[in-house]
Order: sequence, then structure tokens, then C-alpha cells
Amino acid sequence: MLYAQVHLTLPAWVHDAVDPARAYPSDADKVALAIELSKLNVEANSGGPFGAAVFGPDDRIIAVGVNRVVPHACSVAHAEMMAYMLAQGRTQRLRLNRDANDNAIGPITLATSSQPCCQCYGATVWAGIDRLLIGARAADVEALTEFDEGPLPADWIGELHKRGIEVIRDVERDAACAVLKAYGEQGGPNY
Amino acid sequence: MLYAQVHLTLPAWVHDAVDPARAYPSDADKVALAIELSKLNVEANSGGPFGAAVFGPDDRIIAVGVNRVVPHACSVAHAEMMAYMLAQGRTQRLRLNRDANDNAIGPITLATSSQPCCQCYGATVWAGIDRLLIGARAADVEALTEFDEGPLPADWIGELHKRGIEVIRDVERDAACAVLKAYGEQGGPNY
Repeated sequence: MLYAQVHLTLPAWVHDAVDPARAYPSDADKVALAIELSKLNVEANSGGPFGAAVFGPDDRIIAVGVNRVVPHACSVAHAEMMAYMLAQGRTQRLRLNRDANDNAIGPITLATSSQPCCQCYGATVWAGIDRLLIGARAADVEALTEFDEGPLPADWIGELHKRGIEVIRDVERDAACAVLKAYGEQGGPNY
Repeated sequence: MLYAQVHLTLPAWVHDAVDPARAYPSDADKVALAIELSKLNVEANSGGPFGAAVFGPDDRIIAVGVNRVVPHACSVAHAEMMAYMLAQGRTQRLRLNRDANDNAIGPITLATSSQPCCQCYGATVWAGIDRLLIGARAADVEALTEFDEGPLPADWIGELHKRGIEVIRDVERDAACAVLKAYGEQGGPNY
């Protein structure tokens, strides 16, 4: 019998931790949510120390994601991937910033607690976002934990710019690093 | 209410098209299956012209994947991503070539009808494969269809080699290109 179903979920605590009615106006507000999710995910032992959220033009949440690699035995289930898949599933838009008639409906923003790894970087090219907000840098992740970020194009920011995606780094970087540092010190799995 | 469930499936026809008991000994056998899946996916109108399969050390299928982007409104649902997630779900191994005690259990092979795009490339770094077999090149995909393959590291093959992944290109390349050409001529969606 062929295995033919993929089923991935957010942990149940997310429903209590996130208020879909709230607006997150500033870049710092958006990344702070991603960092809070990364912290809660470690505390609940429901995955690695990474969180992300997709926001619509009204600054409200379309979907959130946390790392679910170990619970689901799935190397695809990074925080950004979960956020993209859930945002697309909710809106039924395979490019989040394009409606069914291919008209622009952005800006759509992804906020992530740490710089996307090579997989989440590639997914970002296709997901249909206009802005990418990043907390910790890849160098922070690799210095503070055992995680590897993987190979990227040399000018990874320029490649996103070419495709209409603005990249803003170091948003709430210290707070993002604090979560990574605590995780690194407790020696959790590096998946 | 927060959207918290991702559910992706293979099309029902896959169960009739694939024999999990069969061995695929050669590289050409393995890529030929991926190409056959790409062709059947277009014929069934169940996604884009891309197929992939993960094989175990016994040359039998662990899981297959086809492009499901449009049916699921999900830019993550490329053929290789589906194959990785399904193979990991079936085996419950988040690195396909590592058992629960982190011992090597390879070689694990991914065969794909076309060179992985930037997203599937990054996913390949984490999935736990030892060998990557490719039919059509990225340049073929971009010449024969409207698909974009996205930005890769300049030495993308060398980066995989460094991580223990052997890359073999141009396996059944003409057959892979024939499916792409037919799709390009019929003008299907480029997702």
C-alpha cells in the first residue's frame, strides 16, 4: 500500500497563545510574535526554537507556524513552511499576494524569529510575500545552537529583491537570540 | 479561529500506477518512474509536469510524489517535497538515511523528473538522502515551459557533495524533456 497522505498540525497551545483579532502594526510587533511563538514552542516541547507568522495588509495574522520537525518526523515542517502552507490553505491562494484573477492584494508579510534556512529561503521565493522580516541572523543561529542553516545563493537578499520581496533584518534581534541561547544551553535536538 | 491543519494528498490514480513490490535496480529505472509520474499527472490534470520517488537500499519505493500545487493551492507541494514528506511519514524518520539511534541506513535515493527548484534543493539538504538522480536540467525546464527554477548557490552540486549527497544528472533526460515540451505546448499553469 502506498503512503499518500501528509498531515501536519500546529500544537494545541497555539490557539490560546494567538489572538487572530489583534493587529500587529509595526515590524517589531510582527517579529515579536514570531519570537514569542519560538519561545512557547520550546517551553511546550512541541518542536524546535523557531516561530513565524504571515500577516495581511491589515496587519492581522493570516496564519502562524512553529517548528514541528521532531513531533511529525518531517524535515519540511519548519516554522516558515508551516506558516506558508497554513496561510495558503486558509486563503486558498497559492501565491499569497495574488487573488484568483492574479491581481496584487499585498502587502503580505512573513515575520520569522530567525533567518530562513536554505529550504525556507527557497519556499519564500514561491509563497507570494512582499516583505520578509527577520529576527536573528543565520550566524546567530549557528553560534548559539547546533543548527545548520544550509547553503544559500551568495546574494540571497538581492535575489529576493529581484523578485519583489523586501528583506528587513535584525528586527528584535536580541530577543530572538535570547530564545536561541537558552535552547542551545539546554542542548535540544538540532532538527 | 486559527487555521492549524495542513493536509496534502497524492491523486488517487497513483495507487494504480505504482507497484510498491517492484524493484527499480538502475538509475534509469528510477528516473523513468519519476518521469512516468510526471506524465500521468499532466494527463490526469492533477498537478504540474513533475514527478519524484524515494527509493530504499533494496531499490524499492519508499514513497512517490507529484506536483500538487494548484489542486491544493500550496506552493510547497512540489513533487520532491511530497515524496520527502511521504517517505518520512511512512518511515517515521526525519532523516531518511538515519535510524532512531542515528545509525546510517542508506543509501536512500531521490529520483526526480527535473532538477529540483530552489525550494526542493533546500529541502534536499535536510531530507536525508545519499543520492540525487535528475532527469531534465533546470535549463530544460525554463526553455520548454514557463516555470522558473529560482536562485541556487553557484556551486549547488558541490554544496550537496559536501553534505554527502551524490548528484547524477541527465538520466533519461530526453524522456523527461518530452513531457515538459508537451506541457509547455499545451500552456498549462506555471506553478
